Amino acid sequence: MAITVVGSVAFDSIETPAGKRERCLGGAATYFSLAASYFTNVRVIAVVGEDFGKRQEAVFQARGIDMRGIERAKGKSFFWEGSYMDDLNQAKTHITDLNVFAAFEPKIPEVYADSEFLFLANIDPVLQRRVREAMPKARMVAGDTMNYWIKDHKPALLEVLKELDVLLINDTEVRMLAGKDNLVQAARAVLAMGPSSLVVKHGEYGATLFHAAAAKGEQPKQTFRAPALPLDEVVDPTGAGDSFAGGFFGYLAAQPEITAASYRNAMFYGSVMGSFACERFGTERMQELSREEIDQRFKLFRELTHLD
Amino acid sequence: MAITVVGSVAFDSIETPAGKRERCLGGAATYFSLAASYFTNVRVIAVVGEDFGKRQEAVFQARGIDMRGIERAKGKSFFWEGSYMDDLNQAKTHITDLNVFAAFEPKIPEVYADSEFLFLANIDPVLQRRVREAMPKARMVAGDTMNYWIKDHKPALLEVLKELDVLLINDTEVRMLAGKDNLVQAARAVLAMGPSSLVVKHGEYGATLFHAAAAKGEQPKQTFRAPALPLDEVVDPTGAGDSFAGGFFGYLAAQPEITAASYRNAMFYGSVMGSFACERFGTERMQELSREEIDQRFKLFRELTHLD
Repeated sequence: MAITVVGSVAFDSIETPAGKRERCLGGAATYFSLAASYFTNVRVIAVVGEDFGKRQEAVFQARGIDMRGIERAKGKSFFWEGSYMDDLNQAKTHITDLNVFAAFEPKIPEVYADSEFLFLANIDPVLQRRVREAMPKARMVAGDTMNYWIKDHKPALLEVLKELDVLLINDTEVRMLAGKDNLVQAARAVLAMGPSSLVVKHGEYGATLFHAAAAKGEQPKQTFRAPALPLDEVVDPTGAGDSFAGGFFGYLAAQPEITAASYRNAMFYGSVMGSFACERFGTERMQELSREEIDQRFKLFRELTHLD
Repeated sequence: MAITVVGSVAFDSIETPAGKRERCLGGAATYFSLAASYFTNVRVIAVVGEDFGKRQEAVFQARGIDMRGIERAKGKSFFWEGSYMDDLNQAKTHITDLNVFAAFEPKIPEVYADSEFLFLANIDPVLQRRVREAMPKARMVAGDTMNYWIKDHKPALLEVLKELDVLLINDTEVRMLAGKDNLVQAARAVLAMGPSSLVVKHGEYGATLFHAAAAKGEQPKQTFRAPALPLDEVVDPTGAGDSFAGGFFGYLAAQPEITAASYRNAMFYGSVMGSFACERFGTERMQELSREEIDQRFKLFRELTHLD
């Protein structure tokens, strides 16, 4: 089944202990699309500026990603500059230039309307909600958010949470959103806000999947933890979380039926795609994978925690 | 097979968001012994003061732990006071009174000499080495250490590392010992110092097992990650790491033969015992478990990461 994703397509300048790159292709929707494209068809809704050219287009085209929802606006694309010199788990932002993204009004191509899967990447919750409402055929909706929206736009965010089947956020965000330090208690509080499932990403320690209390007669779904592969070298963690989301949701969208086992496999595929993202700068690694390579790493992850 | 453990037996005063306890029974050797006692016979080498009475003795006796190596000295037992008010992952130490522990000279009862398993809990590496040398029949030796010894007693510690089959330390310690930030690189550097296996404990995120490069013709043992159970309430994390070590090494010591699969199960049993330790203050939970309860939780942990 096709996934439509709305979010940022951007340029990133990144410095890590492994080196430096100027103006790589980046943005949450970019990482998500590339990762999900190894599992299913992906359609993007975003806005870019005049600096988005043939080279950037080619990256999406090579992965068969539908770009008809990427609007070209006058001006420059969203630009982010950051570094991870002290701590690879924590980006330090130097510059955020919203540019054309500041006036982003998502426009949904008619050909996207039949998407049954919708991913709302980290953007203004008001826009997330608008896109969700404009796509009533989406039967499974997942989304992301960040500290900025939790802190300063909570009422709008709470409206979006009611619409979500799966919320994917990190440790700090779930604790901030719930106002609770204990992970299990924080997860329970966030699930009470609406999403039926919650994925908490722990960076180099993997991710945990929590489900809302099962409805009467329904089989309770267990909490599940996927490991992250201990990596020999983290070249650039930018986009790892969005790649996780792409692997997770892309795998789910490709299943004929979504069961408890699909969720578990999806958590592992999310971890797999997150680990690949860190191996090279920007989207470099995410552009050149093969499904075979992905499935090999899936097996490696399985071995990593498997008891006979 | 019996395990001999050398380390501290102490009194702890602890404050956590869940409450406060004055002078609970504590110490690394105490937690280790209690946890390991559910798997095999345990013998302790330690020193206590005149404040160690019938009530404390009864805790060891109830678990069938051999106390003939616990020396009674004039003065008070090791005392630690700490709190976890801001961060349950990080103890803040208020008081450390070494008392009789300051002059600890481990004395090994003759009846302990045939122990084939030896655990060197976190004490002065000079003493760890002395005990190891005095127990030549120990065919498998595991140990722990802490930042203080890594920082200020590194030469003595390096001598001990050469003697170890398994070193169990936490994230901060492995990075400090190796002088490397990347976990995999740090693990490799520490394995080059001597231990054939390394367990890195990640607190609420579980633990990772690394093995030194396999010798020629030997089957390579894979890196393995055990999850930690997301706990609804962490009452008191004191002793969780020592309880992990007790579950891990106790399980190994109870196996007729130690295989790659035994190591994997041992990692899970370590996580299981660490999770129990956090559920009540001090050793309260660790005193009253049953093997059935432990095996039930083992299954829960297995389910937590199991793919069909």
